[in-house]
Amino acid sequence: MLFRQLFDQDSWTYTYLIADASIGKAVLVDPVIGQVDRDYKLLNELGLTLTYCLETHVHADHITGTGKLRELTGCEGIVPENAEVSCASHHISPGEVLKVGEIEIQAIATLGHTDSHMAYLVNGDRVLTGDALFIRGCGRTDFQSGDAGTLYDSVTQNLFTLPDETWVYPAHDYRGHSISTIAEEKQWNPRFVGRTRDQFIDFMDGLNLPDPKKMMEAVPANQQCGNVLAAA
Amino acid sequence: MLFRQLFDQDSWTYTYLIADASIGKAVLVDPVIGQVDRDYKLLNELGLTLTYCLETHVHADHITGTGKLRELTGCEGIVPENAEVSCASHHISPGEVLKVGEIEIQAIATLGHTDSHMAYLVNGDRVLTGDALFIRGCGRTDFQSGDAGTLYDSVTQNLFTLPDETWVYPAHDYRGHSISTIAEEKQWNPRFVGRTRDQFIDFMDGLNLPDPKKMMEAVPANQQCGNVLAAA
Repeated sequence: MLFRQLFDQDSWTYTYLIADASIGKAVLVDPVIGQVDRDYKLLNELGLTLTYCLETHVHADHITGTGKLRELTGCEGIVPENAEVSCASHHISPGEVLKVGEIEIQAIATLGHTDSHMAYLVNGDRVLTGDALFIRGCGRTDFQSGDAGTLYDSVTQNLFTLPDETWVYPAHDYRGHSISTIAEEKQWNPRFVGRTRDQFIDFMDGLNLPDPKKMMEAVPANQQCGNVLAAA
Repeated sequence: MLFRQLFDQDSWTYTYLIADASIGKAVLVDPVIGQVDRDYKLLNELGLTLTYCLETHVHADHITGTGKLRELTGCEGIVPENAEVSCASHHISPGEVLKVGEIEIQAIATLGHTDSHMAYLVNGDRVLTGDALFIRGCGRTDFQSGDAGTLYDSVTQNLFTLPDETWVYPAHDYRGHSISTIAEEKQWNPRFVGRTRDQFIDFMDGLNLPDPKKMMEAVPANQQCGNVLAAA
């Protein structure tokens, strides 16, 4: 398996390139519109055909690269079930497995940051956690029908129950971390450690964060697969 | 082996944490002063004792975290031979192997970006290339006694001769790439592919880059192991 973590400095987003190099087929998870040229170049250099663009959720902080990549490559655009993205090729359900050659990518329901959100377990030993679980943090729950109690349940019941040694790859990091493990997050994530569900809800409800700068632009664009003109 | 890539957004620097978790001993390569709190916290969370801070070279774009980390942990500070860092615990020579438990870190002479520079081959299968070789790029050669012809020789003779599948981990990336391989860089690095040594020298000499913002502060501080007050 070829696996690459790619970073967008503008939105602090991690995009993941996952490929079965033996058959030259690839998936991009959470591509960013401003990085399409970089990602498309890398695919070509590595001799890969893009089969799927896969989203963990409808993002509020950046516009997805899926629309542009679909134009360039003819790939399918896949989003979580219940995501309001009518242009998606497919809505993926919890437990569903996407196969790319020998690679298996299993969707894990992780609602709470938004009301449609999947984490993706890749070949059973690494999980792309989207905005549900960050390294020593988690996504906010105060817009896009987010819900703190639901996020607490998703993380503690659907992610912290994975094997301890599972690698954790988030959709963002704001401190320069790139990777963690389920064991580490269970032991050290300050959002969850030592907090009951009710205490977590109180904490999240008290954050009073400003809206993401690009939210008003990004959410409607992402509901159109990142086709900004169509969304305008 | 525990291996973590850590990013400093201010200087676009990659710091590497390498540890033999079975004995709890760690090395930090190219730590950044502004990230010492993050790195020290991570060491403690992972139950690691910092044995060495290891520099690829005397940096011009950020101040090393070595001085602060030495105060906090008592670690040794190791720099390449000929680096003008009188406070270093040890100057490492080409071919010399640093052992941390079962991990072997071998110094590879890679002069040219500066006149003292080492890459580090970790357990034979991944190379930390410092500012000699970037992903699809290379370090500049126009200050700190840099020399384009020397860098060309270092990269083509001492790095591109490593096995194709060797992982490449640079000290910086400015496009959001995190990892490459020797094979990829031999095939796709636009600084080297299709250029003779003389053409490379002409290209590098024509770059006319502005000095790094922090150069006048960083170089003297780094010659004092990052002890800014001592250098002031």
